[in-house]
Amino acid sequence: MESNLYIGLVHHPVYDRRREIVATAVTNFDVHDIARCARTFGLGGFFVITPLESQVQLVEKLIRHWVEGRGSVYNPTRKESLYLVRVSRTIDEASREISDLWGNRVKRIATGASPYPKSISFGRFRKLLEDRGTPFFLLFGTGWGLTEEVKDGCDYVLAPIEGRGYNHLSVRSAVAIILDRLLGDRTE
Amino acid sequence: MESNLYIGLVHHPVYDRRREIVATAVTNFDVHDIARCARTFGLGGFFVITPLESQVQLVEKLIRHWVEGRGSVYNPTRKESLYLVRVSRTIDEASREISDLWGNRVKRIATGASPYPKSISFGRFRKLLEDRGTPFFLLFGTGWGLTEEVKDGCDYVLAPIEGRGYNHLSVRSAVAIILDRLLGDRTE
Repeated sequence: MESNLYIGLVHHPVYDRRREIVATAVTNFDVHDIARCARTFGLGGFFVITPLESQVQLVEKLIRHWVEGRGSVYNPTRKESLYLVRVSRTIDEASREISDLWGNRVKRIATGASPYPKSISFGRFRKLLEDRGTPFFLLFGTGWGLTEEVKDGCDYVLAPIEGRGYNHLSVRSAVAIILDRLLGDRTE
Repeated sequence: MESNLYIGLVHHPVYDRRREIVATAVTNFDVHDIARCARTFGLGGFFVITPLESQVQLVEKLIRHWVEGRGSVYNPTRKESLYLVRVSRTIDEASREISDLWGNRVKRIATGASPYPKSISFGRFRKLLEDRGTPFFLLFGTGWGLTEEVKDGCDYVLAPIEGRGYNHLSVRSAVAIILDRLLGDRTE
């Protein structure tokens, strides 16, 4: 059964440490780690979102190397994960691609480390995912996180992962934990 | 309340892709990501285990930079996480350090991506952690994983994270998911 959950790793628009809106650079580790998580939990796809042409080409080259090139022979498990990865210039472009594929408007869910008014719990989001005819697009910000404007434009904002007085996980760790909470084995 | 859970990131002895026993290089990303997870979930400590003198010095330099040096001013959240990190030459050396601190022999738990006879479930391990007088040392292998000898020498082996026909998470993602399953909010 095709998964109705997609994730997006947003490199723009996000905040930097001074809360200015920037485009961050794509990190190879992010793409590999998150693609492996996406494959592990059977997602529909993983969009790397960046408006910078140099970064688009970098990610496309990385995917080609591991999916079709020499890397596919050296390490086939990377091929299995990276074939889930797509590059898009904007969140809207990726959203349209998902909506077109499903013939149904994709719903967007923002994530973040800080509490947000009207955020939804993990349990609530698991319930939403049971509507198998609707695709969902879960967005993660790089740098210092998604802008308020992106959050406000989403259908939902997911509750933050509660640390013990510390909320500075890497985006790689946040993706792993959130996907496990949404799709992992809950009986364990 | 001091946590009785410690983690170790093992760079030797681990397997390489040909199942030969090697010492892997320390990856900066691993240290940062895992230290942040350790801080988020309130662990007792995080041991980077490597017998290579050059690698020991590299990690000690990294810690000093972020805990005491210029990095501590640039990004204080790294200081908060990296002060949990210690370097040890061997698993035994780290284990002794924990046992001495607690005045009680530390119990070792191995992790791995493959099923293992007599492995324990996450639920069982959560129960074990309720024995607050006993410290536990959860070991993660880099490269292609902990050797059979290390696993056999542990008190327990934790069940693998079940993916959908794919079990190739990065060690960073595996640490994040496992700590969340053991210590994260289960009511969400």
